[in-house]
Amino acid sequence: MAKTNAGRFFEDYSVGDTLTHAVPRTVGAGERALYHALYPARHALYSSDTFAQASGLAASPLDDMIAFHTVFGKTVPDVSLNAVANLGYAEGRWLKPVWPGDTLTSASEVIGVKQNSNGKSGVVYVRTTGRNQQGEAVLDYVRWVMVRKGNLDAPAPETVIPDLAKVVPAGTLAIPEGLTFQNYDFDQAGEPHRWGDYEIGEQINHVDGVTIEEAEHMMATRLWQNTAKVHFDTSARPDGTRLIYGGHVISMARALSFNGLANAQMVVGLNAGAHANPCLAGDTVRAWSEVLDKAETSAPGVGAIRLRLVATKGGAPFKLRGEDGKYLPEVLLDLDYWALMPI
Amino acid sequence: MAKTNAGRFFEDYSVGDTLTHAVPRTVGAGERALYHALYPARHALYSSDTFAQASGLAASPLDDMIAFHTVFGKTVPDVSLNAVANLGYAEGRWLKPVWPGDTLTSASEVIGVKQNSNGKSGVVYVRTTGRNQQGEAVLDYVRWVMVRKGNLDAPAPETVIPDLAKVVPAGTLAIPEGLTFQNYDFDQAGEPHRWGDYEIGEQINHVDGVTIEEAEHMMATRLWQNTAKVHFDTSARPDGTRLIYGGHVISMARALSFNGLANAQMVVGLNAGAHANPCLAGDTVRAWSEVLDKAETSAPGVGAIRLRLVATKGGAPFKLRGEDGKYLPEVLLDLDYWALMPI
Amino acid sequence: MAKTNAGRFFEDYSVGDTLTHAVPRTVGAGERALYHALYPARHALYSSDTFAQASGLAASPLDDMIAFHTVFGKTVPDVSLNAVANLGYAEGRWLKPVWPGDTLTSASEVIGVKQNSNGKSGVVYVRTTGRNQQGEAVLDYVRWVMVRKGNLDAPAPETVIPDLAKVVPAGTLAIPEGLTFQNYDFDQAGEPHRWGDYEIGEQINHVDGVTIEEAEHMMATRLWQNTAKVHFDTSARPDGTRLIYGGHVISMARALSFNGLANAQMVVGLNAGAHANPCLAGDTVRAWSEVLDKAETSAPGVGAIRLRLVATKGGAPFKLRGEDGKYLPEVLLDLDYWALMPI
Repeated sequence: MAKTNAGRFFEDYSVGDTLTHAVPRTVGAGERALYHALYPARHALYSSDTFAQASGLAASPLDDMIAFHTVFGKTVPDVSLNAVANLGYAEGRWLKPVWPGDTLTSASEVIGVKQNSNGKSGVVYVRTTGRNQQGEAVLDYVRWVMVRKGNLDAPAPETVIPDLAKVVPAGTLAIPEGLTFQNYDFDQAGEPHRWGDYEIGEQINHVDGVTIEEAEHMMATRLWQNTAKVHFDTSARPDGTRLIYGGHVISMARALSFNGLANAQMVVGLNAGAHANPCLAGDTVRAWSEVLDKAETSAPGVGAIRLRLVATKGGAPFKLRGEDGKYLPEVLLDLDYWALMPI
Repeated sequence: MAKTNAGRFFEDYSVGDTLTHAVPRTVGAGERALYHALYPARHALYSSDTFAQASGLAASPLDDMIAFHTVFGKTVPDVSLNAVANLGYAEGRWLKPVWPGDTLTSASEVIGVKQNSNGKSGVVYVRTTGRNQQGEAVLDYVRWVMVRKGNLDAPAPETVIPDLAKVVPAGTLAIPEGLTFQNYDFDQAGEPHRWGDYEIGEQINHVDGVTIEEAEHMMATRLWQNTAKVHFDTSARPDGTRLIYGGHVISMARALSFNGLANAQMVVGLNAGAHANPCLAGDTVRAWSEVLDKAETSAPGVGAIRLRLVATKGGAPFKLRGEDGKYLPEVLLDLDYWALMPI
Repeated sequence: MAKTNAGRFFEDYSVGDTLTHAVPRTVGAGERALYHALYPARHALYSSDTFAQASGLAASPLDDMIAFHTVFGKTVPDVSLNAVANLGYAEGRWLKPVWPGDTLTSASEVIGVKQNSNGKSGVVYVRTTGRNQQGEAVLDYVRWVMVRKGNLDAPAPETVIPDLAKVVPAGTLAIPEGLTFQNYDFDQAGEPHRWGDYEIGEQINHVDGVTIEEAEHMMATRLWQNTAKVHFDTSARPDGTRLIYGGHVISMARALSFNGLANAQMVVGLNAGAHANPCLAGDTVRAWSEVLDKAETSAPGVGAIRLRLVATKGGAPFKLRGEDGKYLPEVLLDLDYWALMPI
């Protein structure tokens, strides 16, 4: 009996299947420090217990992206080991803060399958839920990936394409219990701009850039126990390069967006996301944002802002697609998310 | 009076000497997170408090290799600063888990010396013991190194070669107090293969590879306070390369072995080990294992498995030695150890 | 309204201004482990809770340089984003240990300004104070930087040059409450040399070298939330190199100085410092020290030693300046500090 995991192929997924992902992971002060070492993360709520406490929380939670990467990483051996491409995200909601000491597990339900017309691959849709040691859901999102068939003779399954919301409705965003921005200290947070200062359609160039190193993206990717070969093994791709985990670009861009969006403190919704082009070591990552929408929330002093976050490896800011409607070659990431901000 | 440490030479060791190694070190959540960032470590018992608690432990201990590297690192200034080669290991036993917050110290007894026939160097055998802040031994092992003579005129000492066990007898392995695998969750652990599924002589190709970076092996080696120049200083070796700490290869290979040996949870015995060839940045490390033996233990649901773990930087799996009986040039590590596994 | 921080220019500083720096930061076990991974730090008091407790402290504090870098990093967006050069330090005192879990904030007072004769830039002097979550000052120091003018037509301010002590008087050094070296374990600390063994004028070559990697200095610099572009972005300087944060060289040199100054445990005063030449990845950093002064303290068994710490990227030890009185091109750092040592 072969002992190693060859990964699942397209024909191994059926709508309704539940995938229990290994390995449970306790996260804490160490992951938090590494996050600050790997990304220029400065959002005050995730940097300081005192700032978080003044915002009504028990302590500084772990960065929302630590939650995302930890939950996502576990899905890789079951979902994307034989994936050709990570196609999209939808309906993502952060449901509870992750506290130092929490243990996260991850499970996915297959909610859609569609074989490609070439008969060699297909698209699999999964809804993934991350839970803490109390069994409480902390994160929930849908992603879909293109997966190779292992057996080309396997019959095509009945096509099921889930009906996914284009945008998480603002009213369904989960606000952490007790959160208030009524005592918000803008000096300590780093910028004076409040929710009311941002206009829908406004674009922000985050200015700063970071040139990416192999050691850093590998450390990050391993930290989330993401095992996809292409990130680590120069022999896994014909050109000898290591493809950088798309989540590394998400975290880098989100951290760079501090400069101009320092008060977009908490990420609470993931509406959509595309890894437009591959990122390789040596690329200098920059970011710009666009305000897509704004909404009020029930929490005191807290507004929601919907942002497009674009990471690039060159080119001018605010350019996303060419005349053909395709992403420009220098665009790495196009992410659509909701954040919480002091009103 | 010269203040810097020039290291000990062969003539400075006498059988019966005790070497108290500096510096005591408190290890915890930070070292744990770095271990996960530096190696693709996924064994559930070291990843999750909840998994460890379901296995009868108070919490997730620090990886057994963190204990090994921390205890080993302290010996370098006293044992291997002038070493020509690290020749072997024997009689290694992990005696107590190391918990976050523990402070480790390390001491060695010289148990053997043998001057080489060339009169320029000799072999020194030491038994090293790591202890926690309660003075309890957490790890005990023998290693022997070839050390240069500082004064070629120093007389050869009487040869003493310790009588070392080829294999740590299974009955003497220390099982952590309270350990049980009766409630073992194979889904969360990542693989279904139990002790009974492995056959003596079985070989497992762990498939995955990691291309090594300078920054990573240096961070790892510093983390264990291992100060050997050759790992850090490009001017220390004639070819300008930094030689990678052999323990980095051990941890990398052990972590890669998750894929096929996810349930070989705890390392409890070190029977033998050879760093067959040097590892340099840019090498892509892979690993394969061979089941050498199996034994029952007194703990509920817990079996012991003796494994050969081989790390390579190329070549085909399951090839160890050439026709001349020497290690093939692509073999980095040949390690013989005992692990605990659910039966 | 532009949302991103363009930084302050020379004309934006007035003597008496208070700058409140973002972002508060909770530091702990993770930062401590990363410090040990990034630098070959071995001083026992910062490595071991048990050693610190035997020295009368509650636990092992975070390295004094963690305190310095964390407090310093916060000042960068307000003080040195448009700085041409970091010119000097004075009157630095570590006033309280920083414990794991402490949250640090940073604020600066402008204490001097002097426009340069070219009218294009000027020198700004600030006194920066770091505080913990109780509002207690943990660190206080003066630094001065050359800053570009944004508006060349802005009138020159009245010149104010603060009167700064050349050396922090030994009697004003803050000794941590409860500190004693009466039970000092020299074996565990790693060297037998006590305060009485060092002579004023004595020079110590710390021998070891570390070749610097991009990933490491960037991780370190991000960890302190230092956002200066030149450290991260290969497009920020004409030659495409990333300039290494001067504090990375300070920590590297201080850690290397363990070999010969293992008992210079705590850094309590910063008399002066110059970043003599830029450090780039690939440089091999070495260090030497010179004993400048010694003083007694009121704490049991504790002496103060004033040290010059020089980091180099080549050349012979103990060479600092050329015949022209300028720093030799291979000198990276010339730091003058007070440390505490067992008498």
